[in-house]
Amino acid sequence: MKRIVIIGTGLIGSSLGLALKQAQVKEVEIMGYDRELSASSKALKRGAIDKVARNLKAAVAEASMVILATPVMAIKELLSQIGPELSQNCVVTDAASTKVQVMSWAEEHLPQGVSFVGGHPMAGKETSGVNNAEADLFSGRIYCLTPGKTATPEAVETVVGLVGQVKARPFFIDAAEHDGLVGAVSHLPIVLSAALVSMATSSPSWQEMAKLAASGFRDLSRLASGDPDMNRDICLTNSENLARWINIYIQHLLHYQELILAGSEGLGKEFQKVQLLREKWLIQPEGPWDEKTSPELPGAFQALESMLIGERLAERSRQIAERLEDRAKGSPS
Amino acid sequence: MKRIVIIGTGLIGSSLGLALKQAQVKEVEIMGYDRELSASSKALKRGAIDKVARNLKAAVAEASMVILATPVMAIKELLSQIGPELSQNCVVTDAASTKVQVMSWAEEHLPQGVSFVGGHPMAGKETSGVNNAEADLFSGRIYCLTPGKTATPEAVETVVGLVGQVKARPFFIDAAEHDGLVGAVSHLPIVLSAALVSMATSSPSWQEMAKLAASGFRDLSRLASGDPDMNRDICLTNSENLARWINIYIQHLLHYQELILAGSEGLGKEFQKVQLLREKWLIQPEGPWDEKTSPELPGAFQALESMLIGERLAERSRQIAERLEDRAKGSPS
Repeated sequence: MKRIVIIGTGLIGSSLGLALKQAQVKEVEIMGYDRELSASSKALKRGAIDKVARNLKAAVAEASMVILATPVMAIKELLSQIGPELSQNCVVTDAASTKVQVMSWAEEHLPQGVSFVGGHPMAGKETSGVNNAEADLFSGRIYCLTPGKTATPEAVETVVGLVGQVKARPFFIDAAEHDGLVGAVSHLPIVLSAALVSMATSSPSWQEMAKLAASGFRDLSRLASGDPDMNRDICLTNSENLARWINIYIQHLLHYQELILAGSEGLGKEFQKVQLLREKWLIQPEGPWDEKTSPELPGAFQALESMLIGERLAERSRQIAERLEDRAKGSPS
Repeated sequence: MKRIVIIGTGLIGSSLGLALKQAQVKEVEIMGYDRELSASSKALKRGAIDKVARNLKAAVAEASMVILATPVMAIKELLSQIGPELSQNCVVTDAASTKVQVMSWAEEHLPQGVSFVGGHPMAGKETSGVNNAEADLFSGRIYCLTPGKTATPEAVETVVGLVGQVKARPFFIDAAEHDGLVGAVSHLPIVLSAALVSMATSSPSWQEMAKLAASGFRDLSRLASGDPDMNRDICLTNSENLARWINIYIQHLLHYQELILAGSEGLGKEFQKVQLLREKWLIQPEGPWDEKTSPELPGAFQALESMLIGERLAERSRQIAERLEDRAKGSPS
């Protein structure tokens, strides 16, 4: 019996648990730890974990895999706490929205012999907590992976296996590139949404405006309803990228302002262009598969199970590691 | 048999038709006109209108009420075309998203004896066209009304009756105030959404970004999928308000940028504040009813039917007109 410990049994942690249980991985025990005992107890009741871990250090000491599913800022402290307790060959991964800082914390706090493979499932909901967890939350979604410098090929394949078990699609990416890209399409939208609510509600006419606000305002303000601690942590661990994207975004806004004030024909063309580009994105959100995605790793989806039941993957893993390294070097970012 | 002519049988025009048919207003014939014959034919097939109008001038000449449900910029031309044909006491209304320009066009082009009462139902969908029309599109929604200077009390009450028949809630508002408020909560979001798509897709990394873009990007970019002509018209007829709101919005964005770069505790508080304010808005979107809304006009919901079957409303209407005038004078804007 191998042990997976999920730290943080909120929306993402509990959904990972439910997805793993649904996949019926053999000979695996899933333990859940949360600083709020009520959250891990609820996760147990919902069947997202097999057992509540009350003593974090004791729980991770016996773990084959540890999944950190807490807000970003909690990860640093957790890594320093669990680092000394982990056994050799333990695989540690996370699910945080930013990767550069997490990778450096892992490097600092995890001992030799423990592999860290950063993770970020591109899935989420407006609502949070174990009550909103779903086994299919990750189904078909991109799952970013940022292997640490010292992660073993076996560890990487194990996390690719985890991604496959929760039905997501592994996407290898450099941590800095990840933070730059999601800064634009995931973190900037949070700030845009919050700034809109901030602007509207601070207007002396908000009481009247609120009556007239309809579905457009509702959609654009949705991300302002996200967990405030999570949003703060995301912004603070990706501050430089965000600051840069805010500047670029303002340039685009000012361009629209110019077109609007000029009464320009260009404005209609601009709206046509963005409509078309968004439709294209909706139809094929992830574009054509390219060499950085990994559907061609046929064995990977069974790898978690394989490793956990003790099968040696040495030869195949070495081959995969070489391929990963080639890719990392050849990355066009 | 009285006649209502709906000009423009797209999403809004056809939904108004469906809602009126559902309300089973007696002795009324609904004619539909669209510059695309296929659109009015489809509206007929869907049961949104009783008859297709092929000759616009002939159709409106016999109308008791004309509803303009086209993009804003088409309204000017239409008013000048139909103005000379309309019969005395005809009531003209519209459903455009901006009101100041529409009101001035109506004043310019409609003859004496014809009443114009501007309208703007606060309802919409991402999708457009008669195929997406719904009888319940306006149900429970705020419906802004901006009576023209020369509109008779009977005409105002008739349009209030229309609003009641489609199950919406009348909300009297000054045209300039309307454009300022919806500029912030309805038109600015369109520009924010388009600028986000514009920014992301013009990045050299868009192909990679597109893979990582998830539900946050989807929500924030939704309005960029709206009808480009409609969006252009909205911006061009509300340009000054929009330009002003873009400036104010940028100030709020820069404030967030400052908090993010400062690594400030204030950022967490800001996210808490906007989350709370949005929740309040979701729970009570229109706030407490105030004296500008009109639930206290008990007869109004039957007024359309009443007028159309010839009932005189003179005395009551005069009282209502006085009340409306008092409100307009006492308006805090």
